[in-house]
Amino acid sequence: MVRATIVGGTGYTGVELLRLLLGHPGVEIVAVTSRAEAGTALADTFPNLRGRCSLVFTDPGNIPDCDVVFFATPNGTAMAQAPGLLDRGMRIIDLAADFRLRQVAEWEHWYRQPHACPELLAEAVYGLPELNRDRIRGARIVANPGCYPTAVALGFLPLVEARLLQPESLVADAKSGVTGAGRRRELGNMFSEVSDSFKAYAVGGHRHLPEIRQLLAGVAGAAVDLVFVPHLVPMLRGIHATLHARLRSDETDLQALFEARYRSEPFVDVLPADSHPDTRSVRGSNTCRIAVHRPPGAGRVVVLSVIDNLVKGAAGQAVQNMNLMFGLEESAGLSALALLP
Amino acid sequence: MVRATIVGGTGYTGVELLRLLLGHPGVEIVAVTSRAEAGTALADTFPNLRGRCSLVFTDPGNIPDCDVVFFATPNGTAMAQAPGLLDRGMRIIDLAADFRLRQVAEWEHWYRQPHACPELLAEAVYGLPELNRDRIRGARIVANPGCYPTAVALGFLPLVEARLLQPESLVADAKSGVTGAGRRRELGNMFSEVSDSFKAYAVGGHRHLPEIRQLLAGVAGAAVDLVFVPHLVPMLRGIHATLHARLRSDETDLQALFEARYRSEPFVDVLPADSHPDTRSVRGSNTCRIAVHRPPGAGRVVVLSVIDNLVKGAAGQAVQNMNLMFGLEESAGLSALALLP
Amino acid sequence: MVRATIVGGTGYTGVELLRLLLGHPGVEIVAVTSRAEAGTALADTFPNLRGRCSLVFTDPGNIPDCDVVFFATPNGTAMAQAPGLLDRGMRIIDLAADFRLRQVAEWEHWYRQPHACPELLAEAVYGLPELNRDRIRGARIVANPGCYPTAVALGFLPLVEARLLQPESLVADAKSGVTGAGRRRELGNMFSEVSDSFKAYAVGGHRHLPEIRQLLAGVAGAAVDLVFVPHLVPMLRGIHATLHARLRSDETDLQALFEARYRSEPFVDVLPADSHPDTRSVRGSNTCRIAVHRPPGAGRVVVLSVIDNLVKGAAGQAVQNMNLMFGLEESAGLSALALLP
Amino acid sequence: MVRATIVGGTGYTGVELLRLLLGHPGVEIVAVTSRAEAGTALADTFPNLRGRCSLVFTDPGNIPDCDVVFFATPNGTAMAQAPGLLDRGMRIIDLAADFRLRQVAEWEHWYRQPHACPELLAEAVYGLPELNRDRIRGARIVANPGCYPTAVALGFLPLVEARLLQPESLVADAKSGVTGAGRRRELGNMFSEVSDSFKAYAVGGHRHLPEIRQLLAGVAGAAVDLVFVPHLVPMLRGIHATLHARLRSDETDLQALFEARYRSEPFVDVLPADSHPDTRSVRGSNTCRIAVHRPPGAGRVVVLSVIDNLVKGAAGQAVQNMNLMFGLEESAGLSALALLP
Repeated sequence: MVRATIVGGTGYTGVELLRLLLGHPGVEIVAVTSRAEAGTALADTFPNLRGRCSLVFTDPGNIPDCDVVFFATPNGTAMAQAPGLLDRGMRIIDLAADFRLRQVAEWEHWYRQPHACPELLAEAVYGLPELNRDRIRGARIVANPGCYPTAVALGFLPLVEARLLQPESLVADAKSGVTGAGRRRELGNMFSEVSDSFKAYAVGGHRHLPEIRQLLAGVAGAAVDLVFVPHLVPMLRGIHATLHARLRSDETDLQALFEARYRSEPFVDVLPADSHPDTRSVRGSNTCRIAVHRPPGAGRVVVLSVIDNLVKGAAGQAVQNMNLMFGLEESAGLSALALLP
Repeated sequence: MVRATIVGGTGYTGVELLRLLLGHPGVEIVAVTSRAEAGTALADTFPNLRGRCSLVFTDPGNIPDCDVVFFATPNGTAMAQAPGLLDRGMRIIDLAADFRLRQVAEWEHWYRQPHACPELLAEAVYGLPELNRDRIRGARIVANPGCYPTAVALGFLPLVEARLLQPESLVADAKSGVTGAGRRRELGNMFSEVSDSFKAYAVGGHRHLPEIRQLLAGVAGAAVDLVFVPHLVPMLRGIHATLHARLRSDETDLQALFEARYRSEPFVDVLPADSHPDTRSVRGSNTCRIAVHRPPGAGRVVVLSVIDNLVKGAAGQAVQNMNLMFGLEESAGLSALALLP
Repeated sequence: MVRATIVGGTGYTGVELLRLLLGHPGVEIVAVTSRAEAGTALADTFPNLRGRCSLVFTDPGNIPDCDVVFFATPNGTAMAQAPGLLDRGMRIIDLAADFRLRQVAEWEHWYRQPHACPELLAEAVYGLPELNRDRIRGARIVANPGCYPTAVALGFLPLVEARLLQPESLVADAKSGVTGAGRRRELGNMFSEVSDSFKAYAVGGHRHLPEIRQLLAGVAGAAVDLVFVPHLVPMLRGIHATLHARLRSDETDLQALFEARYRSEPFVDVLPADSHPDTRSVRGSNTCRIAVHRPPGAGRVVVLSVIDNLVKGAAGQAVQNMNLMFGLEESAGLSALALLP
Repeated sequence: MVRATIVGGTGYTGVELLRLLLGHPGVEIVAVTSRAEAGTALADTFPNLRGRCSLVFTDPGNIPDCDVVFFATPNGTAMAQAPGLLDRGMRIIDLAADFRLRQVAEWEHWYRQPHACPELLAEAVYGLPELNRDRIRGARIVANPGCYPTAVALGFLPLVEARLLQPESLVADAKSGVTGAGRRRELGNMFSEVSDSFKAYAVGGHRHLPEIRQLLAGVAGAAVDLVFVPHLVPMLRGIHATLHARLRSDETDLQALFEARYRSEPFVDVLPADSHPDTRSVRGSNTCRIAVHRPPGAGRVVVLSVIDNLVKGAAGQAVQNMNLMFGLEESAGLSALALLP
């Protein structure tokens, strides 16, 4: 049994991680920490756990010896504790952004704080199994990808790897359910402000933009320009990335390209031609469903990529990474079907 | 008083037209037709009309003499009746698509039926007041624009007029509430199928694509290529068009350009720099709110354009056109504020 | 023109009052106060006001001379300022609860603070026009009813007036949209907590319970027992009160009773037998729609009563009261049809 | 392995049954029938099954030999096929209503058709495990309870068993998500008709009323009168039953009563005093969560009972019944936690 600790268990990625790990046959949860809720039962905060989990939140200052520590915390927490935990021989999966960007300066620019352990940025492995599966297996620190970057990267990956896109033509027009904003009590996340409405946000610059650029640049072997516009959808879960680009040529069979690229991937499902995935088809599951289209007009491609932002976009991908790191079946604990309707 | 008939009053654009015209100080509704509901009170179908409207649906075969006939019908109905009504001296505003495309062949391709009166296509005026105000004033037939084309056109207009965009770089990534799909009993419009979910549709070709292309080409004086991807949002009303393009140069002050273009428009509101309009800010109102952005990376522009699909995208714009046609105050009957929250 | 000030203009009842008063032909808004937002434009907080309202929030310490002051504030604010405003000859409509309960001790029990001006409790008129129309006309202070009490009272009124109900059999099972909880940043009002879910709350005692009891007892001329259970519905606006009771006898024609009682009421609409009003049929309007049922089984009555909590349940009823107080047409500024769909 | 057939696999209870059975360690699905979709892959209708289920819909006229047949069909289908299947030695779980009422005349009155096999009504066991566990184990035909009756019965059961309620005081004010209405293309189930709104329906008589009465009467040993008012909530899944009654006396500790009654039930969770369960706390799970309240005023009780209408209210309870019938662990295949948020 892999012994796991969750640091910061009161947010939505935390409770989703709990939901998945409590159903995982190869994991024992040894502690769940929360500064604010230390001493109270997890099931008091999350009633869906009643009768199924007798754990009590513990203080984050006191992480027990275990095999892996998941950080489901605000940005800046994991980097402060990582060196000490590594010294104790534990491995780390950070669901926040502390280890996602390779360049310290860029990280500090976007996250507006000094980085606590720049030396570990180089070591950390970006936890997108479809890209870095082998390196994840051996990693001490995995930077679990952001939700938007996961959906965008999986949609663009086959095209960028095959060098099919015109530079400076990439657009990621992405839409997220409200749980992506976390559990903070902000006006902009209140039901009465976002229900029955739709809006874009952060067009001037979202923290997932440098992450996506770094990711695609790494694949392309060259800088990649793209425009990234996130939007807020009045729904709980789900990301729908609509990806636009111009093709260098019209000759490639894109459907075949995508199917070949993801044939052996357990969590990427390439839909038949002319499909339009809906986010509910992945609700609660770790699957990314993708459709590739040639819209009317020459030289264009549109890719539709959907994930559950809390599963493949956060907790599920973290479990997938843990499975790889500890030699478990990659899909262990991740086999539940999407809840539809 | 302008005497008006509504043909096809049982759909959502029909009831919205009723809501607006019943509050219009210069209009008398003389008849509302419905083949299926002839003989029943309007208020029985739409309870919001109870106590405020004593009209009874009449048979569409029997349109009384009046000044203007609104067609809130499926495509193909208005063109069958238009010649006869014009002969009787009545003017026509078609909220469906019968008179939107200039080329008969293109119309017949997209709407999959022969056009009943091709000669009237040339005469009909495309009813976007911000583009064709003067011609609308004198028109016998106004083709009321589609909901997506309205939101997309108003967002691209200043940029296309100023020749600022690189050809073949235009993307209209548009999102609509479910009322845009009408009142048809289709599986894809059921609550249990679309609530708490998000999807694109018709990426392979939507009927509003040729309408948008024609519209922008007319402004540009040259063919315009663009990709149009519509999406379905789990909300009742609202369209959010996210418009992407590459700029020919970075020198123009886009904020000033938009403000100048729409300064005297009663129903286009250019937001301050760095704004993100939400669809609820126009719920129930005839306003289009627009924000123009320069996203990170050189040479790009992003425009956010929101309307209420049933008002500025249908019934409200029809009333605006009627006001122009009959010399009324352009905003008569259209002054209600958006319902927020 | 009635000159009006709104104290506390940043909540949902405040913005709704603004929406209604800006469209009212007989009112001039002279000031809108907000401690937190003093100095900023109203349209910056509420984008639906852009281009239609150039007012700037002013400090609440500085209320200008005017005819009427609306308090759209938290409980406890109006009672502190009321005496001074009355001395200056201004009249008051309190949309909060400061003047709703007649008994000081009961008020202090439920609102957990001392009452600042108990002598004014006796003078204040409970602003339910269907019950107190004449007294409202002459009132200096009107206590605008709570949203739940309005829906519940209008539903029970004909039955209680006619002494048809068995004592101790009354149940008000009421459901409200989320705007009823106001604009406070509380976890329980966040989209991710309440969307796609349903729950009861405050079964142990809600502040509207003593208000409903007082109201019905006043009508009955005797104490009235009832159970009141409020619920939260994942929708923006609307209250649906489902009222249950046992009848003293089965002989009365309840449909006729309700129709007679409300025949001349401009804002109460008794639906035909066997109807089920939906809250959307009153969205944005000041109407209360009611249906009365005899469910299977002898001796029972079920009344369904719907209002828009922000209109007939708050701002619209306040305008209706103002109209009465100042001798305006009772429905002035309140004629807009419900927004449906 | 239990070999199971699902008749009528294209509705929401059908796909939910598939979701649960595909994750059940002791079941093999041998066939899923659909007259309309025979020959097409299940995963084409329900994309959440892609990659996890290679079954193809077969014709319902051809049910293979197996251990158990689930009917997820419209009312009237199961009773036509039941005798033949029993003769072949197969057992039946009917998720529709064909075997729920004991009295033939009553069944024919409410379902408006002759009953095809009245003799089997007497044999069929009403599949509420908390009431009939032992009889279910040996049943050949299980009538799977309706969704409303399940929520209402579990909430009233301890009170009725203990003879604590005054006769003729029972009210079940129940609220359901829209999936409860099934997958029929009806106007009343369309997003644009029910979103952001709330309504009661069928106050004049709902088919679940006789089922609830029969159930409670069986427990009470006497006829039980109750008023049942169902409502439609703009959410996908979930039933919230708010149960009202008058107590014969105030002496019993109701919290202790409920806890004792359900202590050993795997799928009934009695919440601590003063709790308010939300439907999302059981989303996708087979649990019923219950809170019991003494509201202000003497002699009253309010019970709040929530289930997922598609799980404990349909497919999950069917699996629970199957587990009992075939000697499997009662919670096999039903251990997933609720999806929250």
